[in-house]
Amino acid sequence: MTVEAMGRPSPFRGLMMDDVPLTINWVMRRAATIFADRPVVTRTPDGGRHRYTYRALAERAGRLAGGLAALGVGPGDRVATLAMNHYQHLEMYFAVPGMGAVLHTVNPRLHPDDLVHIMREAGDRVVVVDQRLWPVWEKIRERLPALAAVVVEDGTGPVPAGSLGYEAVLARGEPVPLADGVADDRQAAAMCYTSGTTGRPKGVVYSHRSLVLHALAEAAVDSIGLSERDTVLPVVPMFHVMAWGLPYGAALHGAGLVLPGHDLTPVGLLTLLEETRTTLTAGVPTIWLGILAELDAHPGRYDVSRLHTMLVGGAAVPPSVLAGLRDRHGLTVLHAWGMTETTPLGSVAHVPAGVDPRPGPEGDAYRLSQGRPAALVEIRARGAGGLVPWDGSTPGELEVRGPWVAAHYYGGDDDGKFTDDGWFRTGDVVTIDARGYLVIRDRAKDLVKSGGEWISSVALENALMGHPSVAEAAVIAVAHPRWQERPLAVLVGRGSDRPSDLELARFLAPQFPDWWLPDGYRWVDAIPRTATGKFLKTALREQFHDALEDRGRDRRGE
Amino acid sequence: MTVEAMGRPSPFRGLMMDDVPLTINWVMRRAATIFADRPVVTRTPDGGRHRYTYRALAERAGRLAGGLAALGVGPGDRVATLAMNHYQHLEMYFAVPGMGAVLHTVNPRLHPDDLVHIMREAGDRVVVVDQRLWPVWEKIRERLPALAAVVVEDGTGPVPAGSLGYEAVLARGEPVPLADGVADDRQAAAMCYTSGTTGRPKGVVYSHRSLVLHALAEAAVDSIGLSERDTVLPVVPMFHVMAWGLPYGAALHGAGLVLPGHDLTPVGLLTLLEETRTTLTAGVPTIWLGILAELDAHPGRYDVSRLHTMLVGGAAVPPSVLAGLRDRHGLTVLHAWGMTETTPLGSVAHVPAGVDPRPGPEGDAYRLSQGRPAALVEIRARGAGGLVPWDGSTPGELEVRGPWVAAHYYGGDDDGKFTDDGWFRTGDVVTIDARGYLVIRDRAKDLVKSGGEWISSVALENALMGHPSVAEAAVIAVAHPRWQERPLAVLVGRGSDRPSDLELARFLAPQFPDWWLPDGYRWVDAIPRTATGKFLKTALREQFHDALEDRGRDRRGE
Repeated sequence: MTVEAMGRPSPFRGLMMDDVPLTINWVMRRAATIFADRPVVTRTPDGGRHRYTYRALAERAGRLAGGLAALGVGPGDRVATLAMNHYQHLEMYFAVPGMGAVLHTVNPRLHPDDLVHIMREAGDRVVVVDQRLWPVWEKIRERLPALAAVVVEDGTGPVPAGSLGYEAVLARGEPVPLADGVADDRQAAAMCYTSGTTGRPKGVVYSHRSLVLHALAEAAVDSIGLSERDTVLPVVPMFHVMAWGLPYGAALHGAGLVLPGHDLTPVGLLTLLEETRTTLTAGVPTIWLGILAELDAHPGRYDVSRLHTMLVGGAAVPPSVLAGLRDRHGLTVLHAWGMTETTPLGSVAHVPAGVDPRPGPEGDAYRLSQGRPAALVEIRARGAGGLVPWDGSTPGELEVRGPWVAAHYYGGDDDGKFTDDGWFRTGDVVTIDARGYLVIRDRAKDLVKSGGEWISSVALENALMGHPSVAEAAVIAVAHPRWQERPLAVLVGRGSDRPSDLELARFLAPQFPDWWLPDGYRWVDAIPRTATGKFLKTALREQFHDALEDRGRDRRGE
Repeated sequence: MTVEAMGRPSPFRGLMMDDVPLTINWVMRRAATIFADRPVVTRTPDGGRHRYTYRALAERAGRLAGGLAALGVGPGDRVATLAMNHYQHLEMYFAVPGMGAVLHTVNPRLHPDDLVHIMREAGDRVVVVDQRLWPVWEKIRERLPALAAVVVEDGTGPVPAGSLGYEAVLARGEPVPLADGVADDRQAAAMCYTSGTTGRPKGVVYSHRSLVLHALAEAAVDSIGLSERDTVLPVVPMFHVMAWGLPYGAALHGAGLVLPGHDLTPVGLLTLLEETRTTLTAGVPTIWLGILAELDAHPGRYDVSRLHTMLVGGAAVPPSVLAGLRDRHGLTVLHAWGMTETTPLGSVAHVPAGVDPRPGPEGDAYRLSQGRPAALVEIRARGAGGLVPWDGSTPGELEVRGPWVAAHYYGGDDDGKFTDDGWFRTGDVVTIDARGYLVIRDRAKDLVKSGGEWISSVALENALMGHPSVAEAAVIAVAHPRWQERPLAVLVGRGSDRPSDLELARFLAPQFPDWWLPDGYRWVDAIPRTATGKFLKTALREQFHDALEDRGRDRRGE
């Protein structure tokens, strides 16, 4: 507060409260002192375990920063990673922002053209690549000649020609004291591109301050509730929205970390969850679909009794997954909503005060919603006629703001995604109830617009996944000569039974208006996915774009 | 993050993350929307109950801001309160900062000269006084002729001549929309003077940002863990360090609030805790001493089974109180440390990971410590030779910094309390262990300096309060001709038995070096207290300053 900020002359002077910068360096310092002996466990590429502590992490991160500086990395430079979840990636998480540079986590599952595009746009100077992911880099390195490549060794042989070994880089420079690197907490710390399901990937730049406040909020009881007593296993990749901020949250609050490396199979994850007595794990719904199937197939094989929270985000959790994990295996799903642009903690679906928290339809309706905005996050929704009422039924596009919500995209192309008064336009069509609970009715572009009315593909998908013979369901909009668009369901079976279209329609009929029912059902072996595990509906739409043409003609002839 | 902040030219531009101001207005807006129906219950002066919701609170706070504006209160003006914990005081908490003015909570138990001094120094323009506290104002009003007085009616009669009624002020102006008042979150929101046990009271000015971040941190599992499912009863007065930030924390996270008004007796509090199903309550140790005595005297009379946390701060909790509440009544004490200068959340005493959290000596040693710094708070301790190691045994003066720690006192007299690099010097002598747990060995000025060595009055007090015949104990330094100072114990008895000095010395002997044992014991009816319930050792020192003169002569003659 300054004298000028006051309305009248007064004896107030200067800043009365400390304005200490909120930096990643500060988080590292806290972890390395107060939580020095808390563990970081990694599953190594050979299937073994690497174990150390936050104290050792801080020491190596300081040396890594020195090594990167010796490579010529300076303040503001972007350093990319093509890497899974392991301690070396965690060291990058602290070393790069800690030296004033910017960590650019790149999704190795992207198309090579997208990789080249975003690494060029970001202006990356160095890329750190898992040895196992070297083929990804091999495909694009000639198109990115300015980048130096550092390889995280997997022990299978020497690092490829034209690259440096990670350990050699780490050994190369004088350690940089991470305590001091950054004076302005609004400085960029990291960046991540959107997954680009619906267009070109766009870069989101996280400041030190936004990441630290986000990590603080993750400890709130009504958000994720991180505590020193937790052991956290992020299944969500560290190239995807900073692994939902969990590495920084764990370090700030002293939780132990378990990093699963390259093995994300249900068996691999369940083995690691049991062995490390993990209390909190996090990932997209498809991960839990696989976990649930493995648990169902082998009752009693895994002891995951320490696990108190399975955080689910990135897509809506199917009700059958929440109920199956809970009712058959005693596991608690915590549903949350967020995006790359929201760091990603946007809202969390706890049951509100006044509602019975025990299993049951009333509580589950809240658990399966997208939840209520986290503290410091604000929401509103806009329909055709302006902001919509919080009545739980009027849909509108969700807009968000808060200290860890993007205000711009990197590179200046904001693409109409920010309102004039600075809110981020999410593209999600939601309803908001009187308590601020969000329900995503659909992505604006995933809605099926049939004869001028909206049909929710999400609602149909969730219902279909409740059918005992359906493992996965994606509902897409397919062109229709009469109704412009009609829904088509694309299904992956469970077991050997394949119910008829009529049987599926009868199954859905009690839950929806007649005109919502899909015009067709197609069985496939697998639904194509984005690099982050979401259904890739653009591919399905391409594959099935003329699926209803005959039906359309039939109907015209009715 | 700005282009200028970057080390090299780059395509980064402007601020990439939202810099939305963190204001009290924002907290009010969240409470009034997402938590609109959560309750605020007040015990009224006539012993009844006033009940409303956050929605009604926000509506009335907006009208109050309009009424204060009509009185001439503008941005930056200081508005004082002389009031206990009730909904009108809560309305002031939101209305005054919300209109850009500064809420100055004044401790009505201070000496009239101190009241005049701080209200003059703060430059208060309006004072809002509880009708029951009118006599306090009556004594000083002629010395503060510039202040307009507003009286919070207690229903016993008309408001005193020369004052306005609170409800009349509230009805007087157009409501001010609290959504918009404050653009700069570093602006002053509130101020509070230190209790001045050790010198002249000094003003601490809280910014909007510091109060909001503090309220966010109060929800962390490893701090207070505030949740919407809580009902919070702050016994700590709203004139004392913003009632430890609990009103703002409750509103931000949607917890219900119970405000006990003027009745802080054990019977009154226990009745209210039971009736409102309070889950979390907070106050100084003397409050819990009284509660424990009442519970012991009437086993089974009160059902406080909903109460999961009794937050204790302001002074060290005696081990006998922690154990008595837990072992005899199933109640959990959570010990925390803070000061007016730290808003006050400094550190919280949870049991760390790796230590058995069940009752027992190892866990209790952590529970009885001052705990570990809250997230975003940093600590260090300085001895004669510089910063001391975190070894749990080397004492030093505690220094603190963080976004809710003061950087200056109001009015410019920083009194040597801030280091050159901006840390606040607390005056507490502490040890810090390897996990960052603080133990206060003493206030720097409460240490007994006997022959050049320090004796901890706190340690002696805690031990003495463990004697079955001792209800309260204060140990003070008394002048001694040979040893400069020697400890004298001032005791309040429990029951009718008064053990002899010899018996007390034998009781203490196993726990302390010989030379720590008090040179004398004095029984009194009550230990004088500060306005905030702490032992007023300055008064004891005055009363007993020559208590050891004879003893001193005796010893010289040995």
